[in-house]
Amino acid sequence: MAAESPAGRRPGRPRSLAREQAILTSAGRLLLAEGMAAFTIERVAADAGVSRVTIYKWWPSKGALALDGFLHVVQDEIAYPDTGDLRADLIAQVTSLVRLFRDTAAARVLTGLLAEAQRDPAVAREFRGRWLQPRRSLAAAIVQRGQQQGIIRHDVDVAAVIDQIYGPVYYRLFAGHEPLVDELATTVVDNVLAGIRAL
Amino acid sequence: MAAESPAGRRPGRPRSLAREQAILTSAGRLLLAEGMAAFTIERVAADAGVSRVTIYKWWPSKGALALDGFLHVVQDEIAYPDTGDLRADLIAQVTSLVRLFRDTAAARVLTGLLAEAQRDPAVAREFRGRWLQPRRSLAAAIVQRGQQQGIIRHDVDVAAVIDQIYGPVYYRLFAGHEPLVDELATTVVDNVLAGIRAL
Repeated sequence: MAAESPAGRRPGRPRSLAREQAILTSAGRLLLAEGMAAFTIERVAADAGVSRVTIYKWWPSKGALALDGFLHVVQDEIAYPDTGDLRADLIAQVTSLVRLFRDTAAARVLTGLLAEAQRDPAVAREFRGRWLQPRRSLAAAIVQRGQQQGIIRHDVDVAAVIDQIYGPVYYRLFAGHEPLVDELATTVVDNVLAGIRAL
Repeated sequence: MAAESPAGRRPGRPRSLAREQAILTSAGRLLLAEGMAAFTIERVAADAGVSRVTIYKWWPSKGALALDGFLHVVQDEIAYPDTGDLRADLIAQVTSLVRLFRDTAAARVLTGLLAEAQRDPAVAREFRGRWLQPRRSLAAAIVQRGQQQGIIRHDVDVAAVIDQIYGPVYYRLFAGHEPLVDELATTVVDNVLAGIRAL
């Protein structure tokens, strides 16, 4: 790297960012087009015009790259509004998740990743760390602000509440026993908010 | 079969039942011991001392046999009390599911089956029809009786309520983001019952 850096400025930054974006775009598109079964680091490297070594330097595993690529291409479709209206913000989040799972190829990607996570603990860790926990943290912040505002009881188990709001969406995605309808978002948010609000 | 039936009585019944039980026991034990990846109709047939033809005659697919065998060996571990106490009965059901997933090899079997269900629609259908829907029907009956008794509002979406009670358990089983603790049962039942009770 030093050889590319005359005049002492930090080298390669813009170029690395551009390559990172190219890799993420290639990874996300490959995943959405062909699913996890066809997803290999070799194909992403070829499509993005980088070496496999570059990818291995920046991502610890195939699962990590798949998830980052997936996030990169779907991030605009997931709403995380923060209007201060607890109920409306939660419903908007759950609705965007329902639509992402119902109306795009994201469902196939996430079910493929989660199926692989059942066999491969590394994929499971990446799924939780890169996809699930960032989203759960945003939802937890909304619920905790509701507690600070006195709208939600202080003794509620925030993780369980999030499971009761988001769990039904993942459960329907995975088991397919009921359709992913828009109304599910309002129903699950209202049922649980009514149960945990401060009296 | 007619050749085995002197004196005109219906032939083979006790013998078929015994063979069916033997097949189910072999299937369930193989599944719990080695998981879905090692599960084949050939191995079940060999262990149960029957022909593959017999198994194919009675079960439409490997997934169907796996689920029936699984149900056969775990049925005693799943509580479905009906004491008339809506809250206590739901908590008992969810607690037994939490413990089944946390403390037995059933978790590995169900995650293996559900992972396979993401790729194979036939396995998905069997999972829903033989495992999920019978359990959901029992839970729905409890909620609907609560509606008839005036404890639960008549306008609630029963399927969504069941998703909010059971979904968190499956969600934790699959994603592993939070532990399957006994207290989860009481928390999810109380949160949603408080939200849907008649005023």
